Amino acid sequence: MTTQHLVTQIKKKNSFLCIGLDVDLEKIPQHLLAEEDPIFAFNKAIIDATHHLCVAYKPNTAFYEAYGLKGWQSLEKTIQYLNKNHPEIFTIADAKRGDIGNTSRMYAKAFLQDLGFDSVTVAPYMGKDSVEPFLEFKDKHTILLALTSNDGAFDFQTKHMEGREVYKHVLETSRSWRNADNLMYVVGATKAEFLADIRTIIPNSFLLVPGVGAQGGNLQEVCKYGMTDDVGLLINSSRGIIYASNDEHFAEAAARIAAELQQEMAAILNQ
Amino acid sequence: MTTQHLVTQIKKKNSFLCIGLDVDLEKIPQHLLAEEDPIFAFNKAIIDATHHLCVAYKPNTAFYEAYGLKGWQSLEKTIQYLNKNHPEIFTIADAKRGDIGNTSRMYAKAFLQDLGFDSVTVAPYMGKDSVEPFLEFKDKHTILLALTSNDGAFDFQTKHMEGREVYKHVLETSRSWRNADNLMYVVGATKAEFLADIRTIIPNSFLLVPGVGAQGGNLQEVCKYGMTDDVGLLINSSRGIIYASNDEHFAEAAARIAAELQQEMAAILNQ
Repeated sequence: MTTQHLVTQIKKKNSFLCIGLDVDLEKIPQHLLAEEDPIFAFNKAIIDATHHLCVAYKPNTAFYEAYGLKGWQSLEKTIQYLNKNHPEIFTIADAKRGDIGNTSRMYAKAFLQDLGFDSVTVAPYMGKDSVEPFLEFKDKHTILLALTSNDGAFDFQTKHMEGREVYKHVLETSRSWRNADNLMYVVGATKAEFLADIRTIIPNSFLLVPGVGAQGGNLQEVCKYGMTDDVGLLINSSRGIIYASNDEHFAEAAARIAAELQQEMAAILNQ
Repeated sequence: MTTQHLVTQIKKKNSFLCIGLDVDLEKIPQHLLAEEDPIFAFNKAIIDATHHLCVAYKPNTAFYEAYGLKGWQSLEKTIQYLNKNHPEIFTIADAKRGDIGNTSRMYAKAFLQDLGFDSVTVAPYMGKDSVEPFLEFKDKHTILLALTSNDGAFDFQTKHMEGREVYKHVLETSRSWRNADNLMYVVGATKAEFLADIRTIIPNSFLLVPGVGAQGGNLQEVCKYGMTDDVGLLINSSRGIIYASNDEHFAEAAARIAAELQQEMAAILNQ
């Protein structure tokens, strides 16, 4: 999917919401455990109830790998369902991969080509040749970790390296990599005030912003400091939406929370 | 597996060789493609031919994920085969994972508990709470990326952060994390001269050293600067061993290369 297509969808739906499909069998409604594939059944119900309210879905691969073969199968079914029924929706494999060049190439093939995701999250620690293989795919996107939403972000990311924070070096350095136009970045909502600075380095790149909701980030603040003329933001919410209720009306409950966020976004977009 | 058990195995076998099982269907002997599970068939043959020469195997998960469900199944069969037939061998899931706490917990469960690996490689960029969930498992090990063997290591890892290189901060900072005794570190053989400095920070920790062979690292140099009283090194070779030949005698060819490395190691251990 091209960035322009994503921007068109955002304007059409008045939403820049991404829903994280982080499915934990201990948290989903227990009646679903009787299904042949409870994880996919849960995802399908969430997608059917919320697809008109969001522009992106983001399964985090950890939650699927935790269930081994069955989990991997649920992930495959989920992305196939999305690509078949909602090809206009931007899909993110939240995998946080990264390895030496020939190995990153295998991950890129797995997520962007074979599974058919529009994008994949990648960790920057191993540098240029660990990321460039992901950038080779036309109309696919690599979402590089810059400033994450967890406490551990302060262990290394915000420390000063040669005069500026490590995450700013990641932003700056990555701009010179081959096919850097295919880069987006993860910037946690819990650090919204950092966004003004970030926009001086990457004025136009799309940012995937986790941490609104369960992790305490604030939507208004993120938009104030991070929004561009083309919006430039995907705000992710996972647990706050998908676990809004765990009774048989879980999907409607998820849609209600998603609608609240979408309306807040519409108000911001139409200010 | 305890560290002491690993040290005992190293002394018994006169080897600190780790063999990387990075299986690419385009590189394995083509007659194996007729097998029901070519990847597992390849791994089984390599393991059967080399298990007396090495103390560890390291499948890199990228090479399995690249084949989707079938690849994941091959990974499961490989670790099950190792745990059943060679429980004395140290197993490493080279996954380079790392995410916010509740998500890292899912990865830790997948690799250390369900699949039953002895260890998993983890990326440090997201800091303490992204790594500690892996450290909770008793007699399991977390192998943290410090200084990798690729060119991209110079993009961030070797840059100066508050007076010293980023990778040294990773070594230093991680020592204070909960259950830090379960930490080992990845340090590339292509940067052997860095090992003397590294040993002043982590004098006793085991190091997983990739990059001997295909990537140009030198075994003698690594041992000179990195070896401890308890050896403290696992030297990995992947492509140099497993792709030594691609005819029907590939396993014997792999064993020959592994034996050369093992003999070089024995000479160093018995100096």
